[in-house]
Formats: sequence, C-alpha cells, structure tokens
Amino acid sequence: MLRVAERIRSVPDYPQPGVLFRDITPVLAHGESFATVTTELAARTGDADVVAGVEARGFLFGAAVALVAGLGTVPVRKAGKLPAVAASRSYDLEYGSATLELPAGVVEPGTRVYVVDDVLATGGTAAATCALLADVGAEVVGFGTLLELTGLHGRATLPDVRVDALLTA
Amino acid sequence: MLRVAERIRSVPDYPQPGVLFRDITPVLAHGESFATVTTELAARTGDADVVAGVEARGFLFGAAVALVAGLGTVPVRKAGKLPAVAASRSYDLEYGSATLELPAGVVEPGTRVYVVDDVLATGGTAAATCALLADVGAEVVGFGTLLELTGLHGRATLPDVRVDALLTA
Repeated sequence: MLRVAERIRSVPDYPQPGVLFRDITPVLAHGESFATVTTELAARTGDADVVAGVEARGFLFGAAVALVAGLGTVPVRKAGKLPAVAASRSYDLEYGSATLELPAGVVEPGTRVYVVDDVLATGGTAAATCALLADVGAEVVGFGTLLELTGLHGRATLPDVRVDALLTA
Repeated sequence: MLRVAERIRSVPDYPQPGVLFRDITPVLAHGESFATVTTELAARTGDADVVAGVEARGFLFGAAVALVAGLGTVPVRKAGKLPAVAASRSYDLEYGSATLELPAGVVEPGTRVYVVDDVLATGGTAAATCALLADVGAEVVGFGTLLELTGLHGRATLPDVRVDALLTA
C-alpha cells in the first residue's frame, strides 16, 4: 500500500481555502494500484450481498470492489439523478451540504451491504449513506475506504459500523 | 445478454416529458449480470492502456471493465469537480447541455484509451469524451456501452471510433 499512497496527490485550498484536497485520480489510472486497492477492499466484504458506492468517486472503487467480490453494486446518488427513490437523506459536508438518494427497487429489507467511498473525511457522507440504508431495512456490514483522514474524526460518525481504511493521513 | 436486457427498466417521461429513460440500476445490482456486462466489455478493450468512464454511470461500468482488463481507469468528469484540468469540452445533451473535463496528469499523448458509458443515446457525451481525449493527444481505440439506442443515431457522432454495444433498443 506504500506505493499506492505515493500516488495520492494533496492539493491545498481546493475546493475552498483551508481544505487540503486528496486527489486519488492517479491511483485509479494506475492499473496495478487500482487492482491492489480493490482487491484489498473486496477481501473485507465478508458476507455482504451487495456493495454500495457513493457518488461519484465512490462509484469507481465500489463498482470494482463489487466485481472482484462477485457481487452487484448499488449507486448511492446525489439528489435529482434517479427516476425512483427509495430513501433520501440530507447532511453537512466538509464544505457545504448535500442530499443523497437510494434507488428504488434494488435493496430489500435484510440485505447486507458493504459501503465504499474513496475518502473518509468528516464522515457526513458516510453516515448519511448508512442512514439511508437503515431507512430501507438494510444492514451495513462494513465501510471501506482508500484513505481515512483521521484528524477529521469521521469514524466517530459511524459508531456501529466496522471501518476498513487502507491508508490513513 | 437476454437476461441482462430484462433487467433494464424503461421509465417514460424522465427526466423530461417525451424522454424514455433507461434505468440500468437493476443490472448493476445483480452480481451475475454486472459480471457478464463488464467481462464482455473488458474482452473488447484490445490493446488499450486505460479505460475512461464517463460521469457518473459510466464510472460504474468503466471502473469494473478496467479492473477485469487489468487496467487503470480515468474518470471523465462533469465541470467543476477536478482540482486540475487537462482539457474541457461543452456539448448538447439529449436534454440540456453540459461540460466534461479530463483530469490533468493522467493521460499522456499516445495513450490508447477505451471509453465506457452505460448508454449511447444521441452521442453528445460520447463525442465530447472522444474529443477531450484527442485534445490531449490520446488515441480512442473503442467505445463500449451496455445499451445503444439506435433510433437516436449516436453512432453517427463517432465516425472514427469502433462502437461496441452489448444491447440495442
């Protein structure tokens, strides 16, 4: 994972002054790094039935993790992108606010879901995603991320979920 | 592919009256269907160096196709999501207009790119993506999609690109 870590670029003051943005694009673009990350996270999906990826960068890792684990993937979408919505949650971001929506008809009550996003920052997105899944009666069996920014304490927003972070910063 | 086709939902008048939206969410959520689609497209990547997925649903298929093919993936993003942009193209959508951006520093001149999106409709998104890649000197070796809506003639916007459509409607 050391060589993967070297491919994460830190961009100061993006998208707002004072925010240090972590650009994971070079990890995605490098076949070996991308395979390493997705294989490591897929090994942590356990008895999940499906992998949820959070729009938009979480889609990239979530879909590949699902494929490796032999599972399907559920896109957790930003507001207004779905023709039919099962559940909706608004939340605060590190910068600004947002609403996430779960598509209708694909997550049944009792479904075991492994959630994937690229970065765990303040945890607002992660907690909203887990709440959405709980709203439809699903069970979140874990949350997997490439990078946890430990100083932002996102893990504290997920007290009942096992957090798998491949890297920390 | 017949069983995959049965999982595509047609939603009338979404997002605008007169548009028949094709909802591929059930294909993604079904592990076997998702694996079938990504494996079929991965087999068509040939000598590509990398797979580009188009935001946002193209990320889901593009990332998984890349993983199966042993390649990395490049996200072609909607405007305003990237800290550094290599190229930008505006285009007309089936409904409305949009701008796509290519991240800086991940596609070198001469890179062979296989482009993936979920649906080929009018071709505006696909053509803009191929133009973006040409702008940075990359070579588009093919465009792969789950579903081609042949009545919208999107293929005509890609005269120099091989189009691989797993399903047509």
